[in-house]
Amino acid sequence: MDQPSPTPRLPPGRRADYRLFRSFETRWHDNDVYGHMNNAIHDTLFDSVANAFLIEPGLLDIGRGERIGLVVESGCRYHAEIAFPDAVAAGLRVGRIGRSAVTYEIGLFAGVSDVAAAEGFFVHVTVDRRTRPPAPLPEADRLKLERIVR
Amino acid sequence: MDQPSPTPRLPPGRRADYRLFRSFETRWHDNDVYGHMNNAIHDTLFDSVANAFLIEPGLLDIGRGERIGLVVESGCRYHAEIAFPDAVAAGLRVGRIGRSAVTYEIGLFAGVSDVAAAEGFFVHVTVDRRTRPPAPLPEADRLKLERIVR
Amino acid sequence: MDQPSPTPRLPPGRRADYRLFRSFETRWHDNDVYGHMNNAIHDTLFDSVANAFLIEPGLLDIGRGERIGLVVESGCRYHAEIAFPDAVAAGLRVGRIGRSAVTYEIGLFAGVSDVAAAEGFFVHVTVDRRTRPPAPLPEADRLKLERIVR
Amino acid sequence: MDQPSPTPRLPPGRRADYRLFRSFETRWHDNDVYGHMNNAIHDTLFDSVANAFLIEPGLLDIGRGERIGLVVESGCRYHAEIAFPDAVAAGLRVGRIGRSAVTYEIGLFAGVSDVAAAEGFFVHVTVDRRTRPPAPLPEADRLKLERIVR
Repeated sequence: MDQPSPTPRLPPGRRADYRLFRSFETRWHDNDVYGHMNNAIHDTLFDSVANAFLIEPGLLDIGRGERIGLVVESGCRYHAEIAFPDAVAAGLRVGRIGRSAVTYEIGLFAGVSDVAAAEGFFVHVTVDRRTRPPAPLPEADRLKLERIVR
Repeated sequence: MDQPSPTPRLPPGRRADYRLFRSFETRWHDNDVYGHMNNAIHDTLFDSVANAFLIEPGLLDIGRGERIGLVVESGCRYHAEIAFPDAVAAGLRVGRIGRSAVTYEIGLFAGVSDVAAAEGFFVHVTVDRRTRPPAPLPEADRLKLERIVR
Repeated sequence: MDQPSPTPRLPPGRRADYRLFRSFETRWHDNDVYGHMNNAIHDTLFDSVANAFLIEPGLLDIGRGERIGLVVESGCRYHAEIAFPDAVAAGLRVGRIGRSAVTYEIGLFAGVSDVAAAEGFFVHVTVDRRTRPPAPLPEADRLKLERIVR
Repeated sequence: MDQPSPTPRLPPGRRADYRLFRSFETRWHDNDVYGHMNNAIHDTLFDSVANAFLIEPGLLDIGRGERIGLVVESGCRYHAEIAFPDAVAAGLRVGRIGRSAVTYEIGLFAGVSDVAAAEGFFVHVTVDRRTRPPAPLPEADRLKLERIVR
């Protein structure tokens, strides 16, 4: 891994830093033995808020679409613990939009807090479903994604 | 998130780049709808190989230890798909060792491949189990961790 | 396993058959390769609705309580598929209450459907947290549980 | 649920009661807050051992097969705790084989123990991948399954 050193700590984001929100209930087994949400669950919520956004306006057809988005990089900074039975709001915005790659950025907010408990990102590369070379992002999709750019 | 842009792509690591290995069988539901291991599962394997290393030499007592390691940052680059029923070897090394923070770096290798399918890291900060301020890493632990520094 | 044969099929339950409800958003990786919620996720929701009920009235103190509930048996019948991004309502009722064992019964309802997509149960045995022999259910807990008996 | 009462307790099974085995390493987040493998993980291992068996002799083509197996019922009895970092051997046998339904029975054995820590089953109904009515089990598949009937 070429970037093992901790990222310099910036202050946690706020809800106003994100464009769209989706709420999730935590689940009993989101907690690990330390009594807080295990760090892998954060990724699961990142995927869920972004894919829900993609499915609803028709950008993604999970079962039959010709193009799918593969995750090529992801990361997360954990500011505070989240724990079952907290509710979590996941805020979404789009960072960089490249020719075939899109960076989604997500903040997780526990309960009614305005300060992110965790912030992360993942990079989707659009590929052909079968043969999987990178495919250019269609222009219509780009326009929709631009509406939630930070 | 202060670092949304994709990390410049370096070539994937090799088994010789890692110090310790633990094998995992994939599971049916590691695969998501795209027929490959979902990206959140990688984090789960990262946690597992590092914590198994910590538990076995007595660095970590899950149930009763005074100090635990909280994950404050994590990241992963995905080079190639892994899919059930592949076996996965998780290679571990320690990157940076700070006063209370340790960076673990992990490579995942599918089947007999010598080229990493994914590489990631996470940063553990040692904290007091109850009150949770950062605690200095004990000297004996530091010596053990230094044996697997990259 | 002493009961391998399929249970005779009864008609799926309705919302009115359950006493308390909790809503859950599905997550991207609840779906498996067949594009529907993997059957292990159902158990996760069963645990979540029952434990949320137990935590809120103070029947369960996850971190420090002297008594915890261990699952000794569970089961589920799957009537219809649930899939991300469906919302799911989990309905809870208590079946049998024994000296130390409680049977929780749960129905999962996708979207606004009144017909259960899945129905299951699990049996909790109350045990002492440390030594883990069965412990009698305290009388105050029994009274609270009786309020949601089917 | 039509069968909420605990099944009468039979003695736990032994390795000799099962026909085929597959080993799994537990993972850090298999453990829940009680420090043992959460009960939903057992189902995940049941699916994994059965599907690995089906994939290897060609009974199941996850990505393209015309027929898939949907789980219509599952159950588990938990005899003893399993905890990360235990290794687990999953033993498989086939119970009942019907016209389109197959009952798989699984025992989980922690470490080198000969006594099952948990035993469960699930019922697969063979369906057409697209239209999903029950489809008869092909004769060749039936013959292969009969080799591991208990």
